[in-house]
Amino acid sequence: MLTLASDFGSPYPAAMKGVICSRTDARLVDIAHDLPRQDPRAAAFWLRETIPWFPPAVHLAVVDPGVGTDRRAIAVRVGDHAIVAPDNGLARPVVRRLREPTAAGDPAAAEPTVEAFEITVETPASSTFHGRDVFAPAAGEIHAVGVDAMADLGMLSRIDLDSCVDIEFPTPTVDGGTIHGEVLVVDDFGNVITNIPGDELADVETVGIDGTSVPVVETFDHVDRGETLVTVGSHGYVECDVNHGRGDEAFGLAVGDAVRLSHGR
Amino acid sequence: MLTLASDFGSPYPAAMKGVICSRTDARLVDIAHDLPRQDPRAAAFWLRETIPWFPPAVHLAVVDPGVGTDRRAIAVRVGDHAIVAPDNGLARPVVRRLREPTAAGDPAAAEPTVEAFEITVETPASSTFHGRDVFAPAAGEIHAVGVDAMADLGMLSRIDLDSCVDIEFPTPTVDGGTIHGEVLVVDDFGNVITNIPGDELADVETVGIDGTSVPVVETFDHVDRGETLVTVGSHGYVECDVNHGRGDEAFGLAVGDAVRLSHGR
Amino acid sequence: MLTLASDFGSPYPAAMKGVICSRTDARLVDIAHDLPRQDPRAAAFWLRETIPWFPPAVHLAVVDPGVGTDRRAIAVRVGDHAIVAPDNGLARPVVRRLREPTAAGDPAAAEPTVEAFEITVETPASSTFHGRDVFAPAAGEIHAVGVDAMADLGMLSRIDLDSCVDIEFPTPTVDGGTIHGEVLVVDDFGNVITNIPGDELADVETVGIDGTSVPVVETFDHVDRGETLVTVGSHGYVECDVNHGRGDEAFGLAVGDAVRLSHGR
Repeated sequence: MLTLASDFGSPYPAAMKGVICSRTDARLVDIAHDLPRQDPRAAAFWLRETIPWFPPAVHLAVVDPGVGTDRRAIAVRVGDHAIVAPDNGLARPVVRRLREPTAAGDPAAAEPTVEAFEITVETPASSTFHGRDVFAPAAGEIHAVGVDAMADLGMLSRIDLDSCVDIEFPTPTVDGGTIHGEVLVVDDFGNVITNIPGDELADVETVGIDGTSVPVVETFDHVDRGETLVTVGSHGYVECDVNHGRGDEAFGLAVGDAVRLSHGR
Repeated sequence: MLTLASDFGSPYPAAMKGVICSRTDARLVDIAHDLPRQDPRAAAFWLRETIPWFPPAVHLAVVDPGVGTDRRAIAVRVGDHAIVAPDNGLARPVVRRLREPTAAGDPAAAEPTVEAFEITVETPASSTFHGRDVFAPAAGEIHAVGVDAMADLGMLSRIDLDSCVDIEFPTPTVDGGTIHGEVLVVDDFGNVITNIPGDELADVETVGIDGTSVPVVETFDHVDRGETLVTVGSHGYVECDVNHGRGDEAFGLAVGDAVRLSHGR
Repeated sequence: MLTLASDFGSPYPAAMKGVICSRTDARLVDIAHDLPRQDPRAAAFWLRETIPWFPPAVHLAVVDPGVGTDRRAIAVRVGDHAIVAPDNGLARPVVRRLREPTAAGDPAAAEPTVEAFEITVETPASSTFHGRDVFAPAAGEIHAVGVDAMADLGMLSRIDLDSCVDIEFPTPTVDGGTIHGEVLVVDDFGNVITNIPGDELADVETVGIDGTSVPVVETFDHVDRGETLVTVGSHGYVECDVNHGRGDEAFGLAVGDAVRLSHGR
């Protein structure tokens, strides 16, 4: 299996698929091709939240504002998964997540091993579409012959994972009864996903969001249509949402904005 | 084969695909993930118009404004098809359609049998994303082991189909020479699809739509670009369209609006 | 393998996929279903730039403003590829491209043979959705039994490729130091893709675009965010772009517009 994720919209991903299908019979599954454009941080969030649901696969991920510069192309093997991406931090949050033990997993299981590689790049056909000319060929070859054979052929060179650019999502800070968080992403529905862990909402009926009292509910349907709500979203974080509406508009919040959550108000 | 349909936009469907691919090697085919948001009626129309073209498959369909409430999760077996959906009416129109004899079918063939099941739901990982945590696991398992094995394992419990929420599309009424219909859906092109059967347009050159005379044509190219037309659409219903334009804007019609069609005017 | 391309948006392509899957187990890969709507010229550009990256396959392409008129349905075999499309020019640029020797190819290899066929069309189920009722069945059958068997069965009739409608992209003209080109397409990013060959930018640091001086760079990141640039795009043509922005808006250019490129100004 080979998954694809990018910010390329349409129809550019098709060229990547053609290149891959010329190298391997892998089953292709699209993660998304409308990842937040040229925003590796938000894209890294979505990769971390989707890729771990898949069985072992090669995962091609290209959100690459530095295309054509000297940023490296990398491949990271984590257990039986391999992530192929530009070295701009995109791959690291999902690599960390894949190393974590899962609730359903065997607690005695060893942590998956992680190895990082730089992809050897010949002069590519274009300086603006490395998705097609660098990353898709590498992902297809890795699927076809495996990371070890690629390394033996000099197509991959072992590097230190710590030498790769990292993206870390900010941790909320606590100041008395107030939690100072941040908006990580806004999804297609307009749901505002913060970095505040969902257990901050345990046993709470209302919270203050930037000073306004909002009901804490388990699910959207527990407030009327058009009403604001706060809930623990499917990623495990506090979300600021609207039933049948857009939370980003109702709360006036966008990616990167500060969110102040206070209990009991 | 396993088809997927939802109103989840992007990238949430990827998590469902990962969950499914962890359970089965089924070929995945997307129906759509931009079904009319939180609108089971319009979504049910599109499911009825697309799923019957497929060979026998498991069809996962999630448009679920009641996620996290006590609405049931159901699976309906119709012949060799199985539909997995929330119990909000989404599945019933396509189930009815799959029971109808087809023009190309053997008229002596028995009507396919229909059996409905409630999906046994353990406490899901989230209260807002049952597509990933309830429906995708069920659809994947049904594809992997079959409905009967699932029932034997207690993962499905037989229920009466008539106990499930239904969605029925309204039937037009006739008042003298006037047919009173309704807009069922508006498609991506802006074509206004009504509930008036196409045979109302037989041998007619113009019709009145809400009092305005519009030419009845076989296909778009029979009027100039930008001109309104009425035709029998690919679903067999009367459509109010514009050649190279949007019918919804030209006719001022939206989903649920009344449409008055009069012959000879 | 069977690829699909159309301007059908969603969910109409699902009906085509169902029809195809009822005829063949072909692996399906979407090229795009948001090709420029009812614009065979722009769609033909994208087909030419994506299909040649694929291994031999049946390629279904439907952008068909003349649906329901007497325009023919055709299939063109080029080497081991087959293109199935309306006879409106859509297929011809990619057919030409597939006949060209590739940089990576064997220079002694024979040019692939090309054969054109008219698809025999029985009265289709609809007059407005030949994607589902004419082209998808033909593409599915061609994948299942092959072009020769289809011809033997009378489902395809050999025709002269030159009898098929053609689309030719305009060639720029040169007037002293000025190149008069045209915008072929604007992509999802807002990048303005002209018909001016990229080698016009060799050894040039700035060019005049419609009289304004713009830096010529190898890649987006070589100018600041929000700044205009001219580069050789991934299709080999001169593109007028903006780093982290939309070139079409910054340059005020749309499909079909004239572009005047002057060196050294």
